[in-house]
Amino acid sequence: MSSSILLHRVLPFSKRLIANTVFPGETVVDATAGNGNDTLFLAEQVGSDGHVYAFDIQQAALHATRERLGELNDRVTLLLDSHANVDVHVNRTIGGAMFNLGYLPYSEDLSIITKPESTIMAIEKLLGLLKMGGIITISVYDGHTGGEEEREALLAFVKKIHQADVHVIRYELLNQRKNPPFLIALEKVRDFQTVRFIEEL
Amino acid sequence: MSSSILLHRVLPFSKRLIANTVFPGETVVDATAGNGNDTLFLAEQVGSDGHVYAFDIQQAALHATRERLGELNDRVTLLLDSHANVDVHVNRTIGGAMFNLGYLPYSEDLSIITKPESTIMAIEKLLGLLKMGGIITISVYDGHTGGEEEREALLAFVKKIHQADVHVIRYELLNQRKNPPFLIALEKVRDFQTVRFIEEL
Repeated sequence: MSSSILLHRVLPFSKRLIANTVFPGETVVDATAGNGNDTLFLAEQVGSDGHVYAFDIQQAALHATRERLGELNDRVTLLLDSHANVDVHVNRTIGGAMFNLGYLPYSEDLSIITKPESTIMAIEKLLGLLKMGGIITISVYDGHTGGEEEREALLAFVKKIHQADVHVIRYELLNQRKNPPFLIALEKVRDFQTVRFIEEL
Repeated sequence: MSSSILLHRVLPFSKRLIANTVFPGETVVDATAGNGNDTLFLAEQVGSDGHVYAFDIQQAALHATRERLGELNDRVTLLLDSHANVDVHVNRTIGGAMFNLGYLPYSEDLSIITKPESTIMAIEKLLGLLKMGGIITISVYDGHTGGEEEREALLAFVKKIHQADVHVIRYELLNQRKNPPFLIALEKVRDFQTVRFIEEL
């Protein structure tokens, strides 16, 4: 085991958390389909009896995801809608969910970015749908215009979540070039439909 | 697996990293013996053929550690010296090392704390001694006087370490009360005796 690297970069670490908690046959959510990388990974995790709901507000992202999925398209519902409306489309327990914040890589319009209000609303709704022991991963890119505001709003939000309901971690590599993302991961540790927040001090 | 918590608190997570990379028969270092908690854990990991060098600058800490170790004392060398002098006492490859920064819990003199200069010197020397794939864990408490300065100096130091030599992660729980520690962990990913630093910009 010591011959392979243990301290993974953020994207492999987030996949490892999901792989350890999502089981075949479960329903999961890709909150930001993007170019379909996580969607494909999730479709593989849930197997032929499971299902993935993949959201994106850009048609180009859904096209790219459909291309990427190939034969696995029948395990995935692609939704051209904001992840903030997840409860309109998904009304069953989910095994996990993944976010990649920021803009769509290689997009023609890099000004289309995830926004703090809708990101936070989606997280709160997904926590309600999540199974006990399930995990939501959020890869946070903050190098673009608007990234810093989203990061700060998101950190302020997750710090208020009651520790008896959800464990929230931050994981990042400190000495990497090129402004890599950091990870926020949330694990549901109590069975609830509506998450509780720490009282404002 | 989903029935037990995956997103561990910092101290269990650091132990898990060490347990995954330290093997029976190896030599390891507890850079801050304190009350002997990590020393005992390390002694268990290396087994009867391995050895632990445990440093502390306070005699009370070494007494407490000796008490805690019981029958495992013969696997441990207790050293009343700064971890900055690790190279004076240890001249062989080590399988891993652990730090708990700050003051000695329950001590009569809480003004005796780890200092940035000696902490950083110890880390640099330990990286040279560390095996490929080995990990150094550093639990950082920053709530005490002097804690913030040590944290900032340490973060500035590890961010300069070349990513081709060492992977450096920061791991922390974001929604815990009582100012818990965060973790810095370093994994040696290239075989070297002297670590390289990113050129100052």
